[in-house]
Amino acid sequence: MTRSSGRAGGDRSRSRSLPDALEQARELVDPALARALGRLEPGIGEVVNYHFGFAVGNASGKAVRPALALLSAEAAGAPAERGLDGAVAVELVHNFSLLHDDIMDGDRERHSRATAWTVFGEPRAILAGDALASLSLQVLLDHGGPEPEPERVRAAALLADSTQRMIAGQSQDLALEGRPDVTLDECLAMLSAKTAALLSCSCAIGAVLAGAEDDLVARLLTFGEHVGIAFQAVDDQLGIWGEPELTGKPTWSDLRQRKSSLPVAAALQADGPQLRRLLARPSLSEADLARIAQLVEEAGGRAWAAEEADRRLQAALDELDGAEIASNTRDGLAALARFIVTRAF
Amino acid sequence: MTRSSGRAGGDRSRSRSLPDALEQARELVDPALARALGRLEPGIGEVVNYHFGFAVGNASGKAVRPALALLSAEAAGAPAERGLDGAVAVELVHNFSLLHDDIMDGDRERHSRATAWTVFGEPRAILAGDALASLSLQVLLDHGGPEPEPERVRAAALLADSTQRMIAGQSQDLALEGRPDVTLDECLAMLSAKTAALLSCSCAIGAVLAGAEDDLVARLLTFGEHVGIAFQAVDDQLGIWGEPELTGKPTWSDLRQRKSSLPVAAALQADGPQLRRLLARPSLSEADLARIAQLVEEAGGRAWAAEEADRRLQAALDELDGAEIASNTRDGLAALARFIVTRAF
Repeated sequence: MTRSSGRAGGDRSRSRSLPDALEQARELVDPALARALGRLEPGIGEVVNYHFGFAVGNASGKAVRPALALLSAEAAGAPAERGLDGAVAVELVHNFSLLHDDIMDGDRERHSRATAWTVFGEPRAILAGDALASLSLQVLLDHGGPEPEPERVRAAALLADSTQRMIAGQSQDLALEGRPDVTLDECLAMLSAKTAALLSCSCAIGAVLAGAEDDLVARLLTFGEHVGIAFQAVDDQLGIWGEPELTGKPTWSDLRQRKSSLPVAAALQADGPQLRRLLARPSLSEADLARIAQLVEEAGGRAWAAEEADRRLQAALDELDGAEIASNTRDGLAALARFIVTRAF
Repeated sequence: MTRSSGRAGGDRSRSRSLPDALEQARELVDPALARALGRLEPGIGEVVNYHFGFAVGNASGKAVRPALALLSAEAAGAPAERGLDGAVAVELVHNFSLLHDDIMDGDRERHSRATAWTVFGEPRAILAGDALASLSLQVLLDHGGPEPEPERVRAAALLADSTQRMIAGQSQDLALEGRPDVTLDECLAMLSAKTAALLSCSCAIGAVLAGAEDDLVARLLTFGEHVGIAFQAVDDQLGIWGEPELTGKPTWSDLRQRKSSLPVAAALQADGPQLRRLLARPSLSEADLARIAQLVEEAGGRAWAAEEADRRLQAALDELDGAEIASNTRDGLAALARFIVTRAF
């Protein structure tokens, strides 16, 4: 989810008020996150604090995942605080992946700031990511008493599995990159792991910590899976047709980088040969990029992605309706799901 | 511990029979390790299998850490098998650190084979390391039944803490590198984290899994800490004065790379100014390196490291003597400690 929050800074998104849950999450999570980061070795702490932007008052960004984690504790009938360590843990995993993604993708900027590896060098940025991954499990497993409660252990196991799925998805993404014959199924499977696994975990980890029944946990995981794919379906559209002043990236950015994306995979399914020939060119001119974007749109790839986002958002909301969740918590989760999916439109 | 096993292949070490514990460990651990690695996404599995050398029959190297883990289960009066998942987990963490270290150090060879990042590229090698780190905790936390036993949870918490210490030590090492005024205390603190933390964990994780009392676990941790520092005191001598045909590295290799090492730190403590002036030179000629090695030796740095290795080995053995451990297990741990410390002399 390299791009996850880089596109939320445009004028249109600033004019929309953030869901309350995000504001509340920041208030709870920021101090807990700072405490966790305070455990890091100073040389690593320096890189991590820069990355999180504490030094320039940017704090933990939009904190979407922590907000979902806190709401999921409430969904289980517990106070939001019961999900707090889960909220911190998913934010740590997310930022571990950002630190390493920026190196792997060679990205030099994030949120209009130089990425950590360009400032501190690759070795320190690699270590900082490693440290956050390890810290995410420490936050859940080390907790005062002699033994962590069973709920913490379940949360840690869920987080480790979701982290492994996220890493697997990144590997699948690398394998698909530049292949001109990616199928929609391959693309969806990759995104389900790369993007949706951690979002899904975020939607359930607070409930797990609060001792929720398996059925509720399963529903929240499915809710998060749908939200994750919906998010990505929107993000993939922005990656091709997003306005540069909103996304902070040039038009056709994903095509230029030959990223696998849902619109392209959907278009390939419908109109193969011409598009495939163009995508297979060893280098792509601006005219090629424009033509590819046009072909993807004409073959219905853009519309498919837009419809998929709607379908998934609806499926996510249906999942909530089937669960026994207090109505204000349900509304909070639904608002957050809508915000994530539509945040920069 | 970048160099950990690269130096065990020389003639003198081949002429010494390996401790039995190492052979036994390989028989138990290799299949379990292969099962764990089989869980990885195929693209990651490809990198990891190459790194482990399964493809060329090299399997899991010397398996020193797994052997210690299995012996530590026996030290707690349990069969070696009780420590098996701990043995696999520490080997996974060790190899996660090797994969990332090779990138961070820009090392192109390990065991006379091209390192993973040079074969598969940095992004895939970073992901492979990330996957092993995550897998190490999955191996402990996911285990058939609905809930991991409390011993597994304690083992996972110990492993996460030790991994974090190892990462912190690597960060300290980066901070010290090239500084001409490193004190012995700083160097020892760095090595205690970077090298000794995971070795110490290896010496206790099997006992933890076997439900050992806190006192035995504490003694095994201290035993491993001493063995780790003793190992490093030897390794640091080899890094300067090791014969290239034994170490696979050019003479003065650590001086050339300006690594922090115990002999240099000890020499700086004794004979500061001249050595410090040389070390501060922006580039070092072969003559400079020869002169530095000579000064370090004359100031007693080499002798100090040799004595420290002896002191630490003795302290490790004393720790065992103070614990209630069956004599054959004690002998196995002592033999392994001696092997680790003297392996390439």
